[in-house]
Parts: sequence; structure tokens; C-alpha cells
Amino acid sequence: MTLLPSLVKGMRDYSSLQVYRRNYMLAAIQAIYTRYGFEPLETPALEHRSTLTGKYGSEGEQLMFNVLKSGDFLEGIEANTTDYKKLKALLSDKGLRYDLTVPLMRHIAAHQHEICFPFRRYQMQPVWRADRPQRGRYREFLQCDADIIGSTSLLCEAEILKLIYDVCTQLNIRGFCIKINHRGILSAIADPEKEKEKEKLFCTIVDKLEKIGLEKVIAALQAAGFSSQATASLVQLQNCNGSHTERLGQLQAAIGDVAQGAKAIEELSNILTQAHGLGLPDGICCIDPTLARGLAYYTGLVMELTVAATPIGSLGGGGRYANLGALFGAKGLTGVGFSFGIDRLYDLMEAQNLFQSITTYTTEVLLTNLEAKAEMQLLHLLNQLRTAGIQAEIYPQRVKINKQLSYAHKKNIPFVVIVGETEYAMDHYTLKNMQTGVQNRYRASELLGLLKTALATKC
Amino acid sequence: MTLLPSLVKGMRDYSSLQVYRRNYMLAAIQAIYTRYGFEPLETPALEHRSTLTGKYGSEGEQLMFNVLKSGDFLEGIEANTTDYKKLKALLSDKGLRYDLTVPLMRHIAAHQHEICFPFRRYQMQPVWRADRPQRGRYREFLQCDADIIGSTSLLCEAEILKLIYDVCTQLNIRGFCIKINHRGILSAIADPEKEKEKEKLFCTIVDKLEKIGLEKVIAALQAAGFSSQATASLVQLQNCNGSHTERLGQLQAAIGDVAQGAKAIEELSNILTQAHGLGLPDGICCIDPTLARGLAYYTGLVMELTVAATPIGSLGGGGRYANLGALFGAKGLTGVGFSFGIDRLYDLMEAQNLFQSITTYTTEVLLTNLEAKAEMQLLHLLNQLRTAGIQAEIYPQRVKINKQLSYAHKKNIPFVVIVGETEYAMDHYTLKNMQTGVQNRYRASELLGLLKTALATKC
Repeated sequence: MTLLPSLVKGMRDYSSLQVYRRNYMLAAIQAIYTRYGFEPLETPALEHRSTLTGKYGSEGEQLMFNVLKSGDFLEGIEANTTDYKKLKALLSDKGLRYDLTVPLMRHIAAHQHEICFPFRRYQMQPVWRADRPQRGRYREFLQCDADIIGSTSLLCEAEILKLIYDVCTQLNIRGFCIKINHRGILSAIADPEKEKEKEKLFCTIVDKLEKIGLEKVIAALQAAGFSSQATASLVQLQNCNGSHTERLGQLQAAIGDVAQGAKAIEELSNILTQAHGLGLPDGICCIDPTLARGLAYYTGLVMELTVAATPIGSLGGGGRYANLGALFGAKGLTGVGFSFGIDRLYDLMEAQNLFQSITTYTTEVLLTNLEAKAEMQLLHLLNQLRTAGIQAEIYPQRVKINKQLSYAHKKNIPFVVIVGETEYAMDHYTLKNMQTGVQNRYRASELLGLLKTALATKC
Repeated sequence: MTLLPSLVKGMRDYSSLQVYRRNYMLAAIQAIYTRYGFEPLETPALEHRSTLTGKYGSEGEQLMFNVLKSGDFLEGIEANTTDYKKLKALLSDKGLRYDLTVPLMRHIAAHQHEICFPFRRYQMQPVWRADRPQRGRYREFLQCDADIIGSTSLLCEAEILKLIYDVCTQLNIRGFCIKINHRGILSAIADPEKEKEKEKLFCTIVDKLEKIGLEKVIAALQAAGFSSQATASLVQLQNCNGSHTERLGQLQAAIGDVAQGAKAIEELSNILTQAHGLGLPDGICCIDPTLARGLAYYTGLVMELTVAATPIGSLGGGGRYANLGALFGAKGLTGVGFSFGIDRLYDLMEAQNLFQSITTYTTEVLLTNLEAKAEMQLLHLLNQLRTAGIQAEIYPQRVKINKQLSYAHKKNIPFVVIVGETEYAMDHYTLKNMQTGVQNRYRASELLGLLKTALATKC
């Protein structure tokens, strides 16, 4: 017995219904991105390892699928090398992209003199992460990113917030909330003296809040040497509540006297005012001073899209990054962007029953294949139907009619054309409505018009 | 100085114009596939190496990008192993798919009891090959496959031929030709005694005809031990010419007395008659008895889409495969399919100037950002425009008007709205037509309607 080959763990096939549903989501997102003036970019699945390892540092190393060098992959490796990280770098010079931000930066760095800034680009492509697969966490997943690069204006942040809102409402998602925070808030708590490394470490630990809980986060912060003042502020701000104005007031009271805190509070306030000007309703954004987002490169606003009371987790995230381009030789490029995780969004939409209206575009008419003499006229008819835009097929083999009808039944094909010996002799076609079971005989000249009308009223 | 990170050799970024053009091609192909009753399938980029190495054999080994094992990739490797192939298999357990046929077979094998046969699926996804990059040969490229699985009927072949024709005419491609042949023809020449291995070898050598020329092919065949009868038949059939009927006659004369030859001739003849019945015009297909297609798994019709007088090469290929499913534990599954190579098709369409009508959907209206007091009303207007389906953006920074107009000019934005101090005081908006340079002042209530009309007539 041959063993059936399996899928790679954490990766999936998408059947036709899933493809239709995903395409419906992508088309909606794309239409909104376009309306906001974003233009598409696509990049290759593979990048040089040196490009990919810049951003996340050691975390990137673990996340990445590494591609073995072509040709002599042992070149330069000494027999007794046992350092895994070094060996990996020697064996592999390419990797699969784990996000769409790194390829964007690589693209911009190479084309910085042709690109018209501010550059608004969107990218909808899969990414790969060698993560441990679990519910809602896939190893191949589709991201839909929108970024505005090359402007420090907070209007960009406001636009991105409204964009997220527009996408969610277009998709009819219920109960969504955009959590926002500013890295300056966390920086003011962690590190009033502005030591960049301390802020990064603080964010990395606080980012685990939802996973491990406040108590463990506090313990980890203490172990890492953060002051009791810092942990106390964190506890205080975790209880932040009320309207935007109230929350901003609580932030002001807690960290308004630290320069980066005051600036962050002002920026948050401005962004919310501008987003409101763009039509963002109250109650969509929620200031959460403990929102960190793991990535080290954020420098201003951070955002996370969530839906309360679902185990699916974050549906997307983003933020302002001031210095990311520099890693790739593009100086002074600041940007703000957001990335929708389509696979989780799909899971959520399924849970919220939002795919009801998505029908599969399957065959509308099946021509049965019964009478050898009728074959040519059926082929002509098939071509006529397709030319008229009707989705049609002929059953390829001349087998018993029951088998052919059963095929139509299983595939939910609404109409079947039957030409047996009798029909052929009379130059007639029997048209069977598979839903009602009603069948009648027609001339060829009548059939096409009849089907057109019947299918038009079905839609 | 930081060195700019580069693209992986043989891979490319697609800018917005290229994405729009590719999407136009894909939409056209998808619409035709759908009309023919094909349903979409998508599969992951990565497959187990054991799945991928089955089909091509040693050729697949060379073509494939191998992904390094996660975790302990040295497990099971002895220090003195120097056999590259063995080492590769030990270091890597996954690879990037190099075609869409293997994933299809893997999918069918796993779902054979749920799938409704004959199964008509299409798949439009990138594949990766560690080939030497050269003109028209990329290492990441997009394939659009359509396959009918589970029927031996030659009607399937006829449908695929008409499908190729419909796609090419829909895309307005000029001078295309579908070369066809039947593996039985080559088998009858190579090996009248039906030793399968000899036929495979013959096909592999004859497949190089276009690349290395007849003389070298003959020499290679002789070196491989093929009879002088075989090489003589090949030379004779290379000069095959005239109409289908004439070519079939010449084939009959040359190999009609060999059983598999006679059967192949009959099948070719039937396929052409049925394709004609489906509306395929004369002169689109061309019987080429030396067409081999490299892949070992074809067993019947083979097809290749070409355009004369272009250096771009084959635009797609396909054929009938009788036993492919068996490799994956799905017994008795026969299929016929075709794969368009979108990247070469793109190059051809560019060369034939067929993208003229594809415009980029860029921003239609730019709101300039000049007067702080006007910001809120501009954000309202921006939201109104977008809600009305107009692609609009605001220049994020408040900089000199010339810089903002220059941005609109570079991005080919047709309309610009200007609100300076004067306009703000009068509650007016200046609308500038960037093409004519004409500008006039309007009230907010007039602006939206005016822009809607102007943009509608532009399209």
C-alpha cells in the first residue's frame, strides 16, 4: 500500500469555496485600498538571508524558513563546525519572507530615486513563518498591508485608522475594536532617561501581557531590573478607562511630566481628532497604554485590530516606524502601515457567519452525453452557451444517464440538457430543471434564450 | 556606506503597472476557466520533499529549492557524509513547489473519496525553479493550470484545445499556434516493441530538438542505441507538412503499421474533429510529430503554445497523463491539462503592444494641504469623495503648493483641490484640472457633483 502524501504541517489547501470567499475578502480590501490612493506592489517569495535577518534580529532567525544553497552547499564549511547559527548561514543564503515590510523597505531602498513620495503602497501576498502551528496560527498565511512611506504627518496615522474601519465595516465584521497606543507612552514608563535598549526590552516583556498575565509580566520586569516606579505606572495605566479624553487625562496624570510621554499624549490626541474628521465614529478606537506590539522597530503609534469575545486573537497590527529604511540604505524614511491577517479574518468571518452571500460559481448547465450521433450538435451548443457567458460543460464519457445526473446533482448544477435517441430523431433537446425536477422538450433555437432568462432570474 | 540589498537572482518585483497588467491577464483567464466549469484550488508553496521528488526524478532534484529543516537540521548526519544528494535529503525535508501538477495529485489522492469526478480544477499560483536565469526564464513564475481529472474521454483534450484558443483570442494575441503531438507517435518511432524506458529516453532527447538542432539529436539518439530505422523515421516526420489530413496521412504512411502509432493517429484525428465541433478554427493547431515535451509522465496528446517569430519560447504546455495519480496512491486517475506561463505571456503581450488599454487606477483627486484652519473641512471632503467611490488622497504635510502640485503631476492625478487663505475665508474650493491647467472656484455643495461628472466622462 502506498502511503498518501500529506500537507506540510501548519499549511493548507484551499478548496473552491474557500478560494471564492478569500477572493471576496481580497476584492473588498483592494477596492478600499485603491480608493485611498494606494498602489499595488508584489515581491518575490524568496529574499537574501542578509535582507531578512536585519529587522527582527534573533527572532527573525527562528521564524524563517531557510532555503538550502543551490549547487555546492558545503562550500566553506569545515568538518567540525557545530555552531548551528553559523552553519545555517553557511548552508543557506536565501529565505522565505516572513512579512511584507522587509521586502517593501528593500524595494524602496533600491528605487528611492524613482519613487514619488509620500509613497502609498499596498501588498497582498502570503508570508511564511516556521512557528509552532496552533489554532489561528498558520505557517503560511496571507497578509494585506497598506503603508504610507515618506511623511512624518500624523494625518497618515489618521488615514490608516479610518482605512481599518472602512475595511471592517465593508466586510460587515461585528464588535471590532482598534486598540491603539504610542511607543512614547511605554518609553516614558520604562525609561524616562531614554535609553533605547531599555524601551525595547520593556516592550518585549509587556507584549506578553495577554499571554502570561500581569503578575508574570511584573515579575519579568523586576527581574530585568526595571524600577518599582515603572512597574507601578504600568499597573496604574492598565486600569486606564473611560472616553478618549478621560484616558488621555489619566495618561497625563501618570506620565505627562516626562517629555516623551507628553509628546505621545499630544500625538494620540491629534491623531484621534483627525481620524474623527475623516469620519471615524466614536467607540472604534480604544487607547490601551499596555499595548506594545512585539516588533522592535515601531517608534510612534501602534495599532492592533481585535474582536472581543473571540479566541481568534489579533486580526492585524501596525504602527509608525521612523528608522526602518536606514537598515536598507534608505536614509530618513519614516512610514506608517497596517497589515490585515487574512487567514484569521477568514476564521472570524466564518464564526460570524458572514459568508452567507458568497455563492460558488459552478457550472450552470450540464450537457449529458448519451447519443453518439448527437455529439457534434452538442459540441456546437456547448460553444454557443459559453460564448453567451453561460458556465457550461459536457459530461465527457458516454455512460448511463443516472451517473451523469448524479454528477450534476453532486455539483449543484441547476440545469441539465438531455439528448437521447428520441430527442435526436425529433431534433429536440430535453431541458431538466434539477431543483424542481421539471423537464420539457425544446428546439435548439428556443434553448439558448430560455436558459439565459432562467439563469438571469436565478442570480 | 550601506550596500543596498538586492533581489534574489532570477526573481523580480512587480510595480503597480505590472500588477495591473498581470491582474488583467489573470482575470481574463479566470473568466474563461470558470465558463468551462473549472473550479479553483490553491495549495501551499511548500510541500514535503518526498512529495516533490516523485515526478521528475533526478531532474526534480536539480530544479527544486530545498528548505532547511527547522530545529536540529544536523540530526542523523554523520560527520563524514559527502554524498550531496543524500546530505540534501538529510538537511532538508521540504521544498518549494516547481509546478502545480504535483500539488494537484497530492490533493486528489487525499480527497479522492469526496471529490466529484470528472474533476475540473484550475490553479493560478507561482512556482519556483532553481534554474539558471536567462531571458524569458525566471526562477519564480506564475502558472495558470486547468486540468480535467478522472475521464479517459478525448472530449477533454478537445475542450482544452478550445480553451487555449479562447484565452489567446480573449487576450488578442496574434500569430499563436498550438503545436500538438501524441506520445504514441514518438513511441511508435522509438520503440515499436513498447519498452517504456526507451520511449522516455527518446522523448528526452527529441525534446532538445529546438535547442540543439536535428543533427545533434540524431547523434544523441544513435549514441543511445536507437536504430537507424528510428532516426530515419524522425527525419522523415520532421518534414511533415500540409493540412491536418495530409499530416495524418504522412504519419499513417510512416508508422501506421505499428499498433501504438495507429492508435495515436486515430486519437489525434478524433480530437481535432471534436475541437472543430467546439468552434476551434482551422489553422490554430499544428501537428508536429517531433514535439515531445520533456516530462516523462505524458502518455497521450501533448500540446505546446507558441508564437512564431518571437524569441520568447513556449508560452505554455500540457498533455494527457494516464498514471500520475498512482505515484500518490490514487489509482487509475487519468487526466489532461494545460498550463499557461504568465510571465512569458506577459513578455509576449508587451512585445505585441497589447497592454495599451490597461490604465493604472491611481488617485483621481488630490486635496492639497495649505491652510491649517481648513484641515477639518478637507478631511470631511476627503471622506465624502471616497464614500462616493472616488479615489482621493490628501497631501499629508503642509508644504509649499508647488511641491504638492509637482506630486500630483508626477502621479498623473487629474484633479487637484486647493484651499488657501482666500478660499478658506470665502468658503470656496479651487478645483484645478491638471491636464488643461484650468482652475475655478466652487462651493462645497457643487464640488462633489462636478468631480463625479468630470471623472465619469474621463473613463
